Amino acid sequence: MYSKTLQNLFKAKKIQIGDKIKVEKEGFEYIGILMPKPETQDPNSIVLKLENGYNVGIGFEKEVKIELLEKRKKKEFEKLKIKSDPKKLTVSVLGCGGTIASKIEYETGAVYPAFTPEDLIQNFPKLKELANVKGRMLFNLFSEDMSPEHWKIIAKETAKEIKNSDGIVLTHGTDTLHYTSAALSFMLQNLPKPVVLVGSQRSSDRPSSDAEMNLICSVLTALSDIAEVVVCMHGEMSDTFNHVHSGVKVRKMHTSRRDTFKSINVLPYAKVWYEKREIEYLRNDFKKRGKRDLILDTKINPNVCLIWIHPGIKPEFVKSLGKFYDGVVLAGTGLGHVQTNKKDKFCTPIISEIENLINSGIPVAMSPQTIFGRINMNVYETGRKLVKIGVMGNYCDWTPETALVKLMWVLGHTKNMKKIKEMMEKNYVGEISERSIPEGFI
Amino acid sequence: MYSKTLQNLFKAKKIQIGDKIKVEKEGFEYIGILMPKPETQDPNSIVLKLENGYNVGIGFEKEVKIELLEKRKKKEFEKLKIKSDPKKLTVSVLGCGGTIASKIEYETGAVYPAFTPEDLIQNFPKLKELANVKGRMLFNLFSEDMSPEHWKIIAKETAKEIKNSDGIVLTHGTDTLHYTSAALSFMLQNLPKPVVLVGSQRSSDRPSSDAEMNLICSVLTALSDIAEVVVCMHGEMSDTFNHVHSGVKVRKMHTSRRDTFKSINVLPYAKVWYEKREIEYLRNDFKKRGKRDLILDTKINPNVCLIWIHPGIKPEFVKSLGKFYDGVVLAGTGLGHVQTNKKDKFCTPIISEIENLINSGIPVAMSPQTIFGRINMNVYETGRKLVKIGVMGNYCDWTPETALVKLMWVLGHTKNMKKIKEMMEKNYVGEISERSIPEGFI
Repeated sequence: MYSKTLQNLFKAKKIQIGDKIKVEKEGFEYIGILMPKPETQDPNSIVLKLENGYNVGIGFEKEVKIELLEKRKKKEFEKLKIKSDPKKLTVSVLGCGGTIASKIEYETGAVYPAFTPEDLIQNFPKLKELANVKGRMLFNLFSEDMSPEHWKIIAKETAKEIKNSDGIVLTHGTDTLHYTSAALSFMLQNLPKPVVLVGSQRSSDRPSSDAEMNLICSVLTALSDIAEVVVCMHGEMSDTFNHVHSGVKVRKMHTSRRDTFKSINVLPYAKVWYEKREIEYLRNDFKKRGKRDLILDTKINPNVCLIWIHPGIKPEFVKSLGKFYDGVVLAGTGLGHVQTNKKDKFCTPIISEIENLINSGIPVAMSPQTIFGRINMNVYETGRKLVKIGVMGNYCDWTPETALVKLMWVLGHTKNMKKIKEMMEKNYVGEISERSIPEGFI
Repeated sequence: MYSKTLQNLFKAKKIQIGDKIKVEKEGFEYIGILMPKPETQDPNSIVLKLENGYNVGIGFEKEVKIELLEKRKKKEFEKLKIKSDPKKLTVSVLGCGGTIASKIEYETGAVYPAFTPEDLIQNFPKLKELANVKGRMLFNLFSEDMSPEHWKIIAKETAKEIKNSDGIVLTHGTDTLHYTSAALSFMLQNLPKPVVLVGSQRSSDRPSSDAEMNLICSVLTALSDIAEVVVCMHGEMSDTFNHVHSGVKVRKMHTSRRDTFKSINVLPYAKVWYEKREIEYLRNDFKKRGKRDLILDTKINPNVCLIWIHPGIKPEFVKSLGKFYDGVVLAGTGLGHVQTNKKDKFCTPIISEIENLINSGIPVAMSPQTIFGRINMNVYETGRKLVKIGVMGNYCDWTPETALVKLMWVLGHTKNMKKIKEMMEKNYVGEISERSIPEGFI
């Protein structure tokens, strides 16, 4: 909150947060939007967002003059009217929410959902230079709230839309973007055209937003030759290129950076150079754009959990999982381990509880809490014991998230333990790499 | 398994895996230890470990001659007799197990615990060029079995040993090395000398082992100026340098690579150049070696769990945590989020269950499942709701593992919710960085 003095002054001049004002001090004139006071700022300092997008703080003293120029705009976006250019390809943008479709509320500094895909296309007219872009909203959620039911909706709507489009862009929150991209990879197989998930780390109305560049690069990717479910996000901190990641081999790796998404154990499929509007392919082992029939398969059992193995985990807790879930993915230590030592008096092994889960018909799969690298339960005695009791996933280099989503999808298809194991350890869409490459690490 | 032909031939010649044999083929003579057949190798190819440490595969045909030279040695290590050199400093090696103290069993390819610290010092005589090195075994466990009770033992033994030593090296399995290093960081405060945790990714008797280099670099670190709990492991794949990581800001990030440990959100304290035996400091903000009284504080409540937030997590599962644990650390999505949406019919919010846990006296802290970056529960509505119900950890850039271990340690000291929050969010040993630096990411 601004100081009492400033609050009173604003009130007297009928100035509100978000209004365009002029501040004169020591011969200088500042024109900009009045911003809410940032937490770290002196409450007696007026914060303006200048026209160049930068914020400036002006210390308030008695000789400072303030003038209201324009009340905050309640911008009404015109409904987008697409004039189709027959020479251009068509890309459909389906909105699922997230920061990319959000707005900063100047009063509180809060971010809230605001933009529809139509708004985005309207806001970023450069998109229309690349393709005939059309858009519609599926729903508007922050992605931490996304559920397996939403994955099904996205898959079904994508399957519909892709018939009348040359590529699909899905705007989505970044928090669980990689869970959704994994789910869509299994639900939308044999794709004829690209399906591109994109998000942003800063809301679309902020000058530092990554939304425009991410959208432009996503549309380019949707026009590319990569007929896979992919994630297209900033490749580095600055606005040079985006990476195109396999939807099953990607992960949000930083809470706040724009280049938060990283390919795990593999190279990204491509770089998209922003200024040049060019795709540079880094791999060639993707399905190429072509005429084929999409296989839509949304059968999924969402009753699967992802459990982090750690010192102190309790056997009775592991035992209880059977009450809540039909399948369990463990994020094991190292090569895929859990507590197994029954001799040392301070150890609390959980392997018997895992065995009991499996024997009661609840499949258990292993994944790495190291995030990078391949599960190998043959190196140590611990791992061999786990394989023996039926833990699945040996030699798989999937991420914990992809293993989780895959087990949900597999359990949507069968309850037969043998078949579950067979399906889990089969490589469907590149979720298990054959070879490990040094470039696949940090 | 080797082919039947080879197995019969070995039997006839009384040759067993691990024996020294001679193989003659096409005028060439190969002398080495007979190895078990690697899985990927032709079963009709004899695999020898040559004296230079490399393995060679020799395709078996009728004209190949095989001869037993020497039965497998049951090497008895002489008990180490330390001749103290008064001009040298003294480093104590305390053994806690792990691969660094393991051996390959040639018959099965299995790795099992075998070496005591005395064995290691005996095996790697170069250690004695650096310092007077003495060693003893605390226990011998694979680190996935390590429990908070073991952390206490290590802390207490380290506190004893450090009085008669210039630095401590702890050999430890890599799987949970970073949990232990975090625990020791809280348990051993105000350190006068370095406490260095070290492990290896390949057992000490393999030619490709990283054990010798890691041990040498650890001893150098134990002699250094860094009076902190640190982890010293390979800095890159080749044998060039080790990194010295803060014990609270480090994580195993790959299932199998030697350079698996990475500093999270900070730079490592130092590089240790292997060939040159030199320390290159990368930071200066560590406690320097000096005269001060170690504060040993092993009070800990191990009843804390680490829960991965993911699509599909069930409210009733979250509710059940109160039955098993006295504290909960969440690995939230993005900036520190969980499901909160109560409006969308497909969402399954868990925020009420988290609130109930907190209200029933079970503290809940947030950590990032992205691994890298800082929790910020002020950006989005979701985060602000979590802060409001009392979730701790806002603005903390700790790893999930460090947050887990810290909550265990804090709960060993108080049951008062206000005091718990105060202690959790206070920076004790560098577990919360003040600034975020770009070099702290991948």
